[in-house]
Amino acid sequence: MIGQRWARSLVCSLTGEESPLDEPAFLSATGRPLLVTYDLDPERGEELKRVLPLRPWTLWRYRELLPTRDPDPVSLGEGGTPIVPLRRLAPPGIHAWIKEEGGNPSGSFKARGLSLAVNRARELGAPGVQLPSAGNAALALATYASAAGLVCRVAMPEDTPATVMDRCRLLGAEVLTCEGTLVEAGKLLAERDDGLWTLATLKEPYRVEGKKTMGLEIAEQFGWQLPDWILYPTGGGTGIVGMHKAFDELERLGLVSGPRPKFGVVQMEGCAPIVKAFEDGAEEAPPWIDPQTRVWGLRVPQAIGDFLILRALRETDGAAVAIAEQDVEPMMKRAALEEGLFIGPEGAASMLAFERLVRSGRITEGERVVIFQTGHPSNYEE
Amino acid sequence: MIGQRWARSLVCSLTGEESPLDEPAFLSATGRPLLVTYDLDPERGEELKRVLPLRPWTLWRYRELLPTRDPDPVSLGEGGTPIVPLRRLAPPGIHAWIKEEGGNPSGSFKARGLSLAVNRARELGAPGVQLPSAGNAALALATYASAAGLVCRVAMPEDTPATVMDRCRLLGAEVLTCEGTLVEAGKLLAERDDGLWTLATLKEPYRVEGKKTMGLEIAEQFGWQLPDWILYPTGGGTGIVGMHKAFDELERLGLVSGPRPKFGVVQMEGCAPIVKAFEDGAEEAPPWIDPQTRVWGLRVPQAIGDFLILRALRETDGAAVAIAEQDVEPMMKRAALEEGLFIGPEGAASMLAFERLVRSGRITEGERVVIFQTGHPSNYEE
Repeated sequence: MIGQRWARSLVCSLTGEESPLDEPAFLSATGRPLLVTYDLDPERGEELKRVLPLRPWTLWRYRELLPTRDPDPVSLGEGGTPIVPLRRLAPPGIHAWIKEEGGNPSGSFKARGLSLAVNRARELGAPGVQLPSAGNAALALATYASAAGLVCRVAMPEDTPATVMDRCRLLGAEVLTCEGTLVEAGKLLAERDDGLWTLATLKEPYRVEGKKTMGLEIAEQFGWQLPDWILYPTGGGTGIVGMHKAFDELERLGLVSGPRPKFGVVQMEGCAPIVKAFEDGAEEAPPWIDPQTRVWGLRVPQAIGDFLILRALRETDGAAVAIAEQDVEPMMKRAALEEGLFIGPEGAASMLAFERLVRSGRITEGERVVIFQTGHPSNYEE
Repeated sequence: MIGQRWARSLVCSLTGEESPLDEPAFLSATGRPLLVTYDLDPERGEELKRVLPLRPWTLWRYRELLPTRDPDPVSLGEGGTPIVPLRRLAPPGIHAWIKEEGGNPSGSFKARGLSLAVNRARELGAPGVQLPSAGNAALALATYASAAGLVCRVAMPEDTPATVMDRCRLLGAEVLTCEGTLVEAGKLLAERDDGLWTLATLKEPYRVEGKKTMGLEIAEQFGWQLPDWILYPTGGGTGIVGMHKAFDELERLGLVSGPRPKFGVVQMEGCAPIVKAFEDGAEEAPPWIDPQTRVWGLRVPQAIGDFLILRALRETDGAAVAIAEQDVEPMMKRAALEEGLFIGPEGAASMLAFERLVRSGRITEGERVVIFQTGHPSNYEE
């Protein structure tokens, strides 16, 4: 069984209704995200744990837990990112690691989800791919579409850093721009009805499978003893949904047990729909009116997976923190000066959330905290 | 013995004269590079091979083969970079992989050598560190000095990309600039006689130990069956010297055997001292007069390890190729468009050397080729 995929079907994340795996799939009949299900048991877990150490450190080491059918997927070395202990920016008694995603192909964590989604699009016969993006997802899509030999189109707000647009064009992608946020960018793509598959966040089932590997890696990097906290800059929130799914699957494999890491959702004061919904005790997050932040990855006024993120937050007794815009750049500077870490604005927001949760007493002595730094700062240059 | 370091002493690379390991050390009595020696045998090789799979994918997985004494070295997750197969830019029948070093901390392969050298400087009591650089080494030094809490100074030619200088300052380094190349930058630092340790290429023994891990990783990634060719953009050449040393050590450990990979030294037509010396059959390479190239990492008119590089080239029946300046940018574009690879100019030079060696028949059908892509292109932005 090792070496084969253990995926069984797709299910609607709201109703649980099943649908077949190897057909083009986007949203469920109820318009909700589809998720991939797997056949898992502790025997398979034992087998997996035995073979894992001999595999390369890319996300494909977890291939039994991934949905791809092709035994030779298109890969640029995505995943396998290090955890880096903080030496000065964590208070004594609290162990904090940066999960440094900036070394991924295309310079961000978006490589994980889009390597999976593009591979699936390729093996299921897509004529090409497109998505709306705040920047990093466009760059990742253009990267993997080029590697896979697929036509690619991306749409971004016109104030997205020029570096990102230039690189997308260099990778052969068609680049559209619009006023507003990635909501308007999505509308722009919807008008182009020419058959390209839209791989927007959680509007197809495979990006979350790629993001899931962040959870699988953390579990393996911590010797299958999950940390106490995972702080995550949350736009569309695929990472939270994915890691939550990863820990579920690892539990069914018998590889982890006990309390789950508490998720810390990190957003910006100028665009904090999940934070507000969490504080309000709501199950869904209404669209944020007039989203304002230059932390592009967090300028996401509405997440289609809102109910999944909020559920993960509550199930893990997590926290949700909104960061002030003016604190981001000073934190980027402190990380460089005090830790030698060259972090992006989303990573800086996570670091600020860490400090806030320590100060407020939510993170306590002896706890182990993973802080996500999701994108290399060079992707933000104008 | 596993978990301890196997390093024994330092030796002069020219005379073989031994000197003690744990004292500040720069050049040998004859003014040549010092190299670290290790106590190695097949029994240790077996032990190492057994424990390696369980260790994280950073260069510290090879800690027995590294010179550091501190069991908790300063680490930012360096090493463990992927090999990415070419899908379109390799001809049928030839298997080529990019060794993608751009995801390292500080965005280049320089992280490897400088993480080792800074750790050694720290544990041997350096008051601070400095070096002359074409760019990437400065960024790596500033990065690790910040992480280690050491004072740092870098000197660069004034036409080094502004991005590099800005980032060095952000990391807390003092930045000096000068006319000319890194030869002049070296002279500028020599004038500042204030006790900072100079970690210039091969003028201390530890950067080569970090670069050595590229060879260790390749051996492990290829299942201890070394590839046929390693194409390497060669400025100071620490990588060639280091990988050659790695394969020697692995052979003494009984982990590899048979023919060594042929090294392909890649330089630019405007600065090709090693290529010229190799073609002339010389044992040393005279300084290149009026070095001209915008591939900054290859604007190195004189390498103190010239005789070691030339020896490695001859011992492996290697090749040396000079690339035309105007071919570099088109290759960067082709790599993005055809492979989804976002490579730096040195990586593009390696790719061009690969094409040249295939065309000339030096690389033949069935051979397995590793092509080094040493730095992320964002480190080159003006």
